[in-house]
Amino acid sequence: MKVAAYAAPSATEDLAPYDIDRRDVGENDVLIDIEYCGVCHSDIHTARNDWHGTQYPIVPGHEIIGRVLEVGSNVKDFKAGQLVGVGCMVDSCRHCHSCEEGLEQYCEEGLVATYNSEDPVSGGITQGGYSDKIVVDKDFVLSVSEKLDTKAVAPLLCAGITTYSPLRQWNVKKGDKVGVIGLGGLGHMGVKLAKAMGAEVVMITTSPEKGKDAKRLGADEVLISKDKEAMKQHANSFDFLLNTVPVPHDVNPYVALLKRDSTMVIVGAIAPLPDIHGGGLIMKRKRIAGSLIGGIKETQEMLDFCAEHNIVSDVEMIDIQNINDAYERVIKSDVKYRFVIDMKSLTQ
Amino acid sequence: MKVAAYAAPSATEDLAPYDIDRRDVGENDVLIDIEYCGVCHSDIHTARNDWHGTQYPIVPGHEIIGRVLEVGSNVKDFKAGQLVGVGCMVDSCRHCHSCEEGLEQYCEEGLVATYNSEDPVSGGITQGGYSDKIVVDKDFVLSVSEKLDTKAVAPLLCAGITTYSPLRQWNVKKGDKVGVIGLGGLGHMGVKLAKAMGAEVVMITTSPEKGKDAKRLGADEVLISKDKEAMKQHANSFDFLLNTVPVPHDVNPYVALLKRDSTMVIVGAIAPLPDIHGGGLIMKRKRIAGSLIGGIKETQEMLDFCAEHNIVSDVEMIDIQNINDAYERVIKSDVKYRFVIDMKSLTQ
Repeated sequence: MKVAAYAAPSATEDLAPYDIDRRDVGENDVLIDIEYCGVCHSDIHTARNDWHGTQYPIVPGHEIIGRVLEVGSNVKDFKAGQLVGVGCMVDSCRHCHSCEEGLEQYCEEGLVATYNSEDPVSGGITQGGYSDKIVVDKDFVLSVSEKLDTKAVAPLLCAGITTYSPLRQWNVKKGDKVGVIGLGGLGHMGVKLAKAMGAEVVMITTSPEKGKDAKRLGADEVLISKDKEAMKQHANSFDFLLNTVPVPHDVNPYVALLKRDSTMVIVGAIAPLPDIHGGGLIMKRKRIAGSLIGGIKETQEMLDFCAEHNIVSDVEMIDIQNINDAYERVIKSDVKYRFVIDMKSLTQ
Repeated sequence: MKVAAYAAPSATEDLAPYDIDRRDVGENDVLIDIEYCGVCHSDIHTARNDWHGTQYPIVPGHEIIGRVLEVGSNVKDFKAGQLVGVGCMVDSCRHCHSCEEGLEQYCEEGLVATYNSEDPVSGGITQGGYSDKIVVDKDFVLSVSEKLDTKAVAPLLCAGITTYSPLRQWNVKKGDKVGVIGLGGLGHMGVKLAKAMGAEVVMITTSPEKGKDAKRLGADEVLISKDKEAMKQHANSFDFLLNTVPVPHDVNPYVALLKRDSTMVIVGAIAPLPDIHGGGLIMKRKRIAGSLIGGIKETQEMLDFCAEHNIVSDVEMIDIQNINDAYERVIKSDVKYRFVIDMKSLTQ
């Protein structure tokens, strides 16, 4: 298959397409012709070995949209030509209690990530969506509606489910006052999804410029987190906070915004959160929780919800040849709000 | 009334008994002859102005047991001679949604603390239980069973309810694996209460010596938090953690002990918790929450639960004349597990 692989952390020259082997299409597998692949910050962390443990050469990409080319003999739910998606996982143990509950993302034996995991079938390393094709077990392939703008559906597979799952898990409902902290790939999906669930959505951002754009995306109100007076006025008033900030930051001013017995869910910062004050949690029985993507069943539910509510990501299209420039712009938050690679560019 | 008041942070000489005025017994009030008063770490923080805002002279004490001397004309539920208790609150706004839900401890206008709050009736400053008598609104007086060792009931009014409330709030039930972190006034009550609720109780402590004592108190198992191998063996296995550590500390090793979708509740550390790793919460959708004492209804429920299960605090009795030595020993965690003042000593 044609792929764009990174051979080492700084090896930008390795992005010229070359061939790698993938596993053959087994009886439970679906071979997908990839049309689009979103660019997630995790791709950059992995390509550059920020989290250590990258096994080179590595092909990133876990926001994959394509059409079925071929299916194995046991595959009944997908047929050639069908529009499908693949997200952050391509397998799991299937028998632990998390898998049995449809929470494969919390698999007790560890999920099989779309790239940089051990492939339980081939024994090789899984490789992601910066590729012309991918082979995925049928149970980890998602059905995608033809109704939406296909290229803008790609980021739903990671940014969409990462924000949808905690909103559902914590039962966000009509009329709830929901704050979305940070406006990037995750945050812009959080605004759209919370709004579609009927919430009163407040974008909480450091930047008045981003606030303005958040209103375009559906936010009812903007709260500038640097404005101490405004933050005080919103104290103890939020039913739920979705914190999408991807770096270490002081969460105490956000905890102060929560109502009694309400929760802030961290989805972005896989990083230390400095000096969370116990008193801020104790005084009104507040909660900080984490959330990781969503299970396969919930991801399908999210895709169906988005089709029903006409929700896609705001995307900027690139060719694979521009991926390193795109990475630099992602790091500078200079994208509205997700880059998507037109995978045809790989074989042109 | 005879009281033991602190006139200033270091004024130990002011502990000789002297007289202060309290409000008259109003139509809704209960006048209580105090028999015992527990010594809570909060008393020390307030006496020494550690939290700033102490209004001197101050009379600490919010684990109060005594007998009714006199009641106001509207008081039907208490009569002279009855054994009663007073905890950390003596009033609240009564009309906010927290008060209406019986959660006066989270009163939106601020609870009226047993000491060092503005008294809504007299306009003065509330004064606590290091005293021969106290006047308290009937709605904040608790009924105490004659069945238990009265002096050992006193600490239930703060240490008891502080640990009981989160165990109930998070629905700890028979067979749950519950970890109690830290063995002091709060921790020893956490062990007894969780055990009585049917949980499998693990004492998590830095000290093997304390671990031994925890077994005497009812813990099924001891986990020494400095033992990295043991901590690893217990990873992702706890249904609930009750964190009673009263000072800033690294909570990440404890978060690692929680099962997916499980919660650690902070009840002790009104202090910054350094560098909580977002990844530790995200990877298995874990939660950190806070909890503050309990409402009046729940405090009564706790007292009744303790009477039913024959649960009291382990106490060491002191006379008021020894209070400053007791404070020093509390600070050094040199008490098993709560000092209680025999208030007769005040008037001897």
